[in-house]
Amino acid sequence: MLEKINSPEDLKKIPLAKLSTLCDEIRQFLIDVLSQTGGHVAPNLGIVEATVALHWVFESPTDKIIFDVSHQSYVHKILTGRKDLIKQLHNTPKINGYTDFSESEHDFFRMGHTSTSISLATGLAKARDLQGRNYNVVSLIGDGALSGGEAFEGFNNGANLKSNFIVIVNDNEFSIDTNSGGLYANLTHLRQTNGDWSNNYFKALGYEYFYVAEGNSVTDLVKVFQVVKDSSRPVVVHIHTKKGKGLSFAENDTVHWHYKGPFDKNTGQAIFNAKANPNFASAVKITQGFLDRQLADNKTAFVIIPGAPNLGDYLKNKYPAQYVDTGIAEEQAVAMMSGAAKVGAKPYLYVSSPFIQRAYDQIIIDWAVNQTPGVMLVAWAGISGGDYTHVGMYDIAMLAHIPALTYITPASDDEYKAMLEFSTTFNKPLAIRLGSGNLPRVEAGSNQPIELGKWAVTQIGSQVAILGLGEYFIKGQQVAQLLQAKGIISTVINPRFINILDKKLLQKLVQNHKIFITLENGIVSGGFGQIVAGYLSSIDAKIIVKNYGAKREFINNELESDIMNRYHLNPEQIVEDIERLV
Amino acid sequence: MLEKINSPEDLKKIPLAKLSTLCDEIRQFLIDVLSQTGGHVAPNLGIVEATVALHWVFESPTDKIIFDVSHQSYVHKILTGRKDLIKQLHNTPKINGYTDFSESEHDFFRMGHTSTSISLATGLAKARDLQGRNYNVVSLIGDGALSGGEAFEGFNNGANLKSNFIVIVNDNEFSIDTNSGGLYANLTHLRQTNGDWSNNYFKALGYEYFYVAEGNSVTDLVKVFQVVKDSSRPVVVHIHTKKGKGLSFAENDTVHWHYKGPFDKNTGQAIFNAKANPNFASAVKITQGFLDRQLADNKTAFVIIPGAPNLGDYLKNKYPAQYVDTGIAEEQAVAMMSGAAKVGAKPYLYVSSPFIQRAYDQIIIDWAVNQTPGVMLVAWAGISGGDYTHVGMYDIAMLAHIPALTYITPASDDEYKAMLEFSTTFNKPLAIRLGSGNLPRVEAGSNQPIELGKWAVTQIGSQVAILGLGEYFIKGQQVAQLLQAKGIISTVINPRFINILDKKLLQKLVQNHKIFITLENGIVSGGFGQIVAGYLSSIDAKIIVKNYGAKREFINNELESDIMNRYHLNPEQIVEDIERLV
Repeated sequence: MLEKINSPEDLKKIPLAKLSTLCDEIRQFLIDVLSQTGGHVAPNLGIVEATVALHWVFESPTDKIIFDVSHQSYVHKILTGRKDLIKQLHNTPKINGYTDFSESEHDFFRMGHTSTSISLATGLAKARDLQGRNYNVVSLIGDGALSGGEAFEGFNNGANLKSNFIVIVNDNEFSIDTNSGGLYANLTHLRQTNGDWSNNYFKALGYEYFYVAEGNSVTDLVKVFQVVKDSSRPVVVHIHTKKGKGLSFAENDTVHWHYKGPFDKNTGQAIFNAKANPNFASAVKITQGFLDRQLADNKTAFVIIPGAPNLGDYLKNKYPAQYVDTGIAEEQAVAMMSGAAKVGAKPYLYVSSPFIQRAYDQIIIDWAVNQTPGVMLVAWAGISGGDYTHVGMYDIAMLAHIPALTYITPASDDEYKAMLEFSTTFNKPLAIRLGSGNLPRVEAGSNQPIELGKWAVTQIGSQVAILGLGEYFIKGQQVAQLLQAKGIISTVINPRFINILDKKLLQKLVQNHKIFITLENGIVSGGFGQIVAGYLSSIDAKIIVKNYGAKREFINNELESDIMNRYHLNPEQIVEDIERLV
Repeated sequence: MLEKINSPEDLKKIPLAKLSTLCDEIRQFLIDVLSQTGGHVAPNLGIVEATVALHWVFESPTDKIIFDVSHQSYVHKILTGRKDLIKQLHNTPKINGYTDFSESEHDFFRMGHTSTSISLATGLAKARDLQGRNYNVVSLIGDGALSGGEAFEGFNNGANLKSNFIVIVNDNEFSIDTNSGGLYANLTHLRQTNGDWSNNYFKALGYEYFYVAEGNSVTDLVKVFQVVKDSSRPVVVHIHTKKGKGLSFAENDTVHWHYKGPFDKNTGQAIFNAKANPNFASAVKITQGFLDRQLADNKTAFVIIPGAPNLGDYLKNKYPAQYVDTGIAEEQAVAMMSGAAKVGAKPYLYVSSPFIQRAYDQIIIDWAVNQTPGVMLVAWAGISGGDYTHVGMYDIAMLAHIPALTYITPASDDEYKAMLEFSTTFNKPLAIRLGSGNLPRVEAGSNQPIELGKWAVTQIGSQVAILGLGEYFIKGQQVAQLLQAKGIISTVINPRFINILDKKLLQKLVQNHKIFITLENGIVSGGFGQIVAGYLSSIDAKIIVKNYGAKREFINNELESDIMNRYHLNPEQIVEDIERLV
């Protein structure tokens, strides 16, 4: 049947009685495709029936279906004409792992961060009401995304609508594994009572409420969706689904099958086991080793993880009392860190660059203005070939200008270890930027101790000074080597401190350097290089400063080699530029 | 009695039976003081009994009492040794309008933004548990602050604690006026049923729950606080209080008495009626006039206000369907704007600079990456003599580097009107920075139409180019006049576009200008000036760029004249600097 379906109209031709068979076909198709492409395996396997039922009952794109995060929109893509394209997932920029309005009229938003769908949907609903139209607005949100503050704000405001507003809560028991209290206990109680628990979170917020115990029964789902369709008031449909359904490995280990690379569908084994590159060390391993010692030595030290990224199970299992998973709740994570540090505990917050964007005000108000000595480790920062919403190249522009926050970044594995040690005694807000996750094993001035605001000079030359920040320090070294081959001995610097200038050093350098090159793994606008340029251009030095990094733009699923070329970030390109200036 | 109270210990010597009389004394004292100093009148009058009961029952500072926002902490300040100091509120840097750890050991955090107390308290509680201590952690949060996502994240995570965690919800019926659905309807139902409503929001989240109908009865409060004291699990005490209690004007008009300047305590009349300065126009009035026309002409245009700041009652009353108050929920406000713009409605978001910090990720992910044509008006932006958390000088560093967002700022009243017109046809994300609220009535190039990325030149000279951004354009004009008196004819520029360089103009200017001055009403780090310096220092122009603005630091209740001196922002100081360079 699937072969003939290229649109929701085609789907609607299938009779209700046959939908269940169609779901089996889709599930098999998904397993075949994902075993080759990799992707969000377990979430999409769990949501097959709900997606089929939604498109069978509602009239997309007139009715608007918004997938929260949208990592579970593969079935939606299959049913809306992208069945062939999805076979190339991760191998072509023509299809994203998330919804994208430029990909299909059935995708309304570019999504990718959690907890946003309900708030976006209130906008659609408000516009619809003002325009005098009357379509359905449907958000589909997973239980994991309910923990984010924006989801609550959306619920609270959505309840004020006097019109159609449907929220499907996909409850796949994320809660059992990690959370015991709060909203997750409420979901558990609701499941256990077939939706009849007193003190229902959704009813408390003013929503009409339906519970579907068999969220993988397409007929049960169709029945309820038909009831709520064209509803004239806010309603929640709480559906209980099985994450990973139909793939035994995924059903049994939903946490590790949330996202998987290509795998053997018979054994579940990963197909590619990437060999570790001996020139790089894993930032996660160094972090884990350091925290292992800290948590063992100091019973008031603890780790805070806002949902993702994961540091692995080791610390969680070994130090359950010293490991706090806040769920997807970065605001909470930052405030909790500051509160705990205030009274002498030693919290370490581990978060990824794109998601720390969700706690900007908390970093300023709950943390920096309170000057509490928390340590924030910012992982997965830098230019990458990921999706729009998962490229972590804005964190320097975001964090470097916040008062009272010191932002540092290591150029090597040894330097990261030294910075972690530095963090144990530094008593003000500190953030450490980790880049892509692989730390170069290079000599980056490790004999020069970490001192507040002091940059490391690793090669002394003249004419050209190269400031290679963090991960891009090795790029600076490569540029220096190429220049040396052309007879130019440059000065190479590892700045370490993103937002503290070593003015003494810079004042010395301007005496015999006329070209300054800054290299950073992030956007130039608002970045490290502009701070340097702002200072150097003010001191009457008659020098040139060239800032290398990314443009102020969104990038999406682009080959990293293409990005490097486009931004002139290859050492050869940089050397060409320098030669023109010398 | 109040005379003898200089600490919580002194308070505890008063017998329970006399606390009510003490509360009357405090209330009278408050009215006397606030009628002279101005301040958050109604919130503090409503919370007298609760504060007295808290300090009578709990042992501050061993027990930690955290006031959300802390604009309602005046009574707390009075009871903790700051009774005389508070008479100088707003007239000395020795006392803030919010809690501040550097002011008293009874204040744990510098607060000022809403909805943060519960999350901060989870950090205190977690630290306490790891440290094996056993004090009470008590947050006091008002109903208005419950709408912010961080408060929900705090509740949801606090519920996981297996230890003492007390949240006092001060419900003064904020809900009646503005909100009908969501959590506020739940509070209303709870009040109407004396706390017995089915589907209790707090119970749904796993909290033990107590309701105090007479939240201005100090004996009722003491009774319940004694019950929950030393509780070994998370508990909510929902207290129903009267905002503005004891001052008839404030009781009858809580919205306008939320904050008041000095007033006559017999008539309620304001003591100072500031005369409008004829050299400035009110940004609020221009905004209101423009929106009045837009909302009348286009029934799909609407205004979104996240709680504060207020645009006044005019639009709200005239266009109830086109005016959305999201409550304090900036994330929701931005996402709603983007969602509505996506399907062709025309939303205008009005927000203040310090609070838009709360929606950084939503601006990037829900809005900019979706390229929806919303318009965000950023009010109260700039260097000011306010409290730590209310100085709006970070928004350029925050917003200017976001891809796909155009950030503009007017130099005059006429230019603001032109920019608002520009916003009606511009079909990408647009933000307009409004500064202090008073727009200079000056000629700032109003004969040069607003064109994307084109700066206005208002005086042509040589040697020195002065780029005066937004409100600081007049500072640039003043500098130019002073220079002219010294025989230097400078070029004066109104850049209009904060984050788009007019490279053509700059390339022309570098030919006969050697000094570039940038002036901006915000921090230099990450600001407009550094974007300019980054470009100019890269083009081998042998020029000097001086960026004027605020340092990367927090400022607090400082005289604006002192700040200007310290940052060298007086025109005379800037001219001195230039003379040294010429």
